[in-house]
Amino acid sequence: MDSEHYVDQVRHKQAISELLFAYCAYLDRMDLDALAALFTDDCQVDYGPEERMHSTGSRQLRQDLERMWRWRRTSHHLSNVMVSLESDNLRANVVSYVFAWHERPDGSTATMMGQYRDLVVREGEQWRIAQRRQELTGNDAGFDVDINPFVRFGPPKSD
Amino acid sequence: MDSEHYVDQVRHKQAISELLFAYCAYLDRMDLDALAALFTDDCQVDYGPEERMHSTGSRQLRQDLERMWRWRRTSHHLSNVMVSLESDNLRANVVSYVFAWHERPDGSTATMMGQYRDLVVREGEQWRIAQRRQELTGNDAGFDVDINPFVRFGPPKSD
Amino acid sequence: MDSEHYVDQVRHKQAISELLFAYCAYLDRMDLDALAALFTDDCQVDYGPEERMHSTGSRQLRQDLERMWRWRRTSHHLSNVMVSLESDNLRANVVSYVFAWHERPDGSTATMMGQYRDLVVREGEQWRIAQRRQELTGNDAGFDVDINPFVRFGPPKSD
Repeated sequence: MDSEHYVDQVRHKQAISELLFAYCAYLDRMDLDALAALFTDDCQVDYGPEERMHSTGSRQLRQDLERMWRWRRTSHHLSNVMVSLESDNLRANVVSYVFAWHERPDGSTATMMGQYRDLVVREGEQWRIAQRRQELTGNDAGFDVDINPFVRFGPPKSD
Repeated sequence: MDSEHYVDQVRHKQAISELLFAYCAYLDRMDLDALAALFTDDCQVDYGPEERMHSTGSRQLRQDLERMWRWRRTSHHLSNVMVSLESDNLRANVVSYVFAWHERPDGSTATMMGQYRDLVVREGEQWRIAQRRQELTGNDAGFDVDINPFVRFGPPKSD
Repeated sequence: MDSEHYVDQVRHKQAISELLFAYCAYLDRMDLDALAALFTDDCQVDYGPEERMHSTGSRQLRQDLERMWRWRRTSHHLSNVMVSLESDNLRANVVSYVFAWHERPDGSTATMMGQYRDLVVREGEQWRIAQRRQELTGNDAGFDVDINPFVRFGPPKSD
């Protein structure tokens, strides 16, 4: 493969990472207008099995995320960004990890850990999230929101 | 834009990330000479509103950070690196997230979460931190250092 | 240096980061076959001073990591990836940070923080871990596995 091909791959991967980081920063800031603009108009977001945890479209997502006002502070730490670009560099599947800390007005806290499993799409130089599914890898006792479970492989069967 | 332009962008962004990671590794190691060399001679560092949390110049920063000896162990996890390069690739504004765990000699611990808001500058291939401001996105009950607050947008006013 | 040189550097660094992220995802999934394939056949892995924490070869590593079934859930968050490529881009030394949360079947938890210090090698486009050493930068009271200590510089001697 030629050098230009690799350049496109690395810069698109970097841009996709920045998209996921911007989501965290806007959410912690509660800048919901900026956050909604990171998603496609017709996005599908699935944070958990309950109906209220599903959002269709960036306009509804923006409204639904007003529920985050119930927290006094949040801190979203995103890492482990794994991008699988399609060959035309117009779509990619992305798996990343989030460590999300939340504090209630009474000072009690709730921490969850999980994966975001995203489909991202590109128009021009702008990547956006078209589909997001959140899966729960861990949580502390203070976190009681119902999130899609992350399913582990089972241990080998004993004979 | 041409390929060479993108190559410069991605490699400088990568180098800037590595600069921020080196800060964490040197701080946890308490290698303060190596840490100070990551900053410009005339850097401005603002960890919090108290006077003792401000350092001017890498020499003073090195001295001020000796306060970190009061911890027995620390672990600084840096993620969400968002780099805005200026067009000449000589300066950049960077926002990143840190999860910082600290342990006292008596075994008690203190955890803070926050953003570093940095101005970084380049001489040749060497990026350095010229300005750093730390803002607090979260902390546990054991952490009682006064850090600049991270300011969230307010909820919409009800009529 | 020319542009092509930089392109190779950035893409290999990105590929090495993805290798370390894949380790975490496969470990949390307990997909040990996929995990073992990330290591060279003759890898040397040193998680801690005890004999059972040393694995030689990817086949033995795969078997040894079945001990992770004793946890009900784990979540491995990897960040601060610092890659030092050798000039031929065939080998690299890598230091990274991990935040690893573990939950027992009884619901009790154990968290460790540490560095992975890796030697990675490349065959074609495939990077693999040839040597891994884990060092402990921090842990909570629930974590009692013996991990190699991360050694901090000592404070200056008083006269």
